[in-house]
Amino acid sequence: MAGTLYGVGVGPGDPDLITLKTYKLFQKADVIITPTGKMGKPSVAYRIAKPHLPENSQLLEMDFPMISLSEERDVLEKKWEENAAIIHQLIEEDKIVVFLTLGDPMVFSTYSYIMEYLLEHDIKIETVSGVTSFCNLAAQINIPLTQGEESLGIVSMTQPEEEIRSILDAHQNIIVMKISANSVWMAEELEARGLDQSFVLVSNIGTEDQKITKNIEDLKGKIPYLSTLLIKKNYPLG
Amino acid sequence: MAGTLYGVGVGPGDPDLITLKTYKLFQKADVIITPTGKMGKPSVAYRIAKPHLPENSQLLEMDFPMISLSEERDVLEKKWEENAAIIHQLIEEDKIVVFLTLGDPMVFSTYSYIMEYLLEHDIKIETVSGVTSFCNLAAQINIPLTQGEESLGIVSMTQPEEEIRSILDAHQNIIVMKISANSVWMAEELEARGLDQSFVLVSNIGTEDQKITKNIEDLKGKIPYLSTLLIKKNYPLG
Repeated sequence: MAGTLYGVGVGPGDPDLITLKTYKLFQKADVIITPTGKMGKPSVAYRIAKPHLPENSQLLEMDFPMISLSEERDVLEKKWEENAAIIHQLIEEDKIVVFLTLGDPMVFSTYSYIMEYLLEHDIKIETVSGVTSFCNLAAQINIPLTQGEESLGIVSMTQPEEEIRSILDAHQNIIVMKISANSVWMAEELEARGLDQSFVLVSNIGTEDQKITKNIEDLKGKIPYLSTLLIKKNYPLG
Repeated sequence: MAGTLYGVGVGPGDPDLITLKTYKLFQKADVIITPTGKMGKPSVAYRIAKPHLPENSQLLEMDFPMISLSEERDVLEKKWEENAAIIHQLIEEDKIVVFLTLGDPMVFSTYSYIMEYLLEHDIKIETVSGVTSFCNLAAQINIPLTQGEESLGIVSMTQPEEEIRSILDAHQNIIVMKISANSVWMAEELEARGLDQSFVLVSNIGTEDQKITKNIEDLKGKIPYLSTLLIKKNYPLG
């Protein structure tokens, strides 16, 4: 079989939320690529995949600095290009390379940048979808993301405030990723719109430290880095 | 084990895109619930699940009329309530009931209404996420849904036009579900915004009849029912 890059989503955290397709790819992969772990721990994506990887799997850690895309794009681009070149070399050697992504590879992932570099060359790339963190959040609290003739907006709290405001205007249902970046601003915005009882904040989902709150005061306090906000304008949140 | 309702997403079409968790639930389910098929064919959700179901699986088909939510909500509500009562009875009999949903159970699914009725009673309900159709679309064409400091809007073409317009304004990336409901209107809207080369239309994804087009004239013509539109304002679509 010729060398191929598979970008796979390992889902939001529960190892059993990976797909059968990804499970089968793990069994035949030559190299598994994952971001370098932080503070001595393996990456979250690797920890999710690990129970399903054969014992002799060859792991390759790649460094993707956690810096701001808008402020240091040139540093990041250099790193993407370097890492893409390493993968390119592996593909040339006819390796089956599996790149792990938390959640889904097409939603806010580093894989998507690497993919762009590699698509410019004539190599085989297949992206394998995964379960997104926001679908899992809704499943955990049994509250639908969107129904019938409503819509859903997905926004990152690192976007410009004016963009976030128009997304808050446009949808009945909104998911705010990276809410810890500016949760006080969002709390005030919700109060100003009479939506201070129309949200659920979920932190450290699926872990021992999971916390679910509907209290606006919690949103104004210090909240964990791994937190996501679901806003529902017309839904009884109980 | 006490009776439990599991609402599971079977993903967008490829049977190998179900999760390991759903696969394991299939092996221990007492009853598998799926919508009644149309025109003599089993439902799409059942066709996806079938390769993974044990031979002696007990199937229960439920009728969910394909009528307009805004125009005939009372007819639909009566049907949801009837079907929820049947499931409630099964749970009381300590059955493990698995309700199949195309894609993810929390994104535009009938399961979410059934879940709402059953949450009012004191029974165990667990929702198991699946891969959404829009993530799969992006994977098939290797184009990211959203990256970095951008956002994503997900809208159904059956929503009011004014709502769709503000969603087109608010996001750099937009997924339009059920685009066949009014694709000519959307084509004109894209032209008026100078976005006539900023979209990909994917029809019958993952089937023999799959078609991918970036031509605005195709969007103005008759398009298949199973079509989804991805709009990307700032991305080289080639």
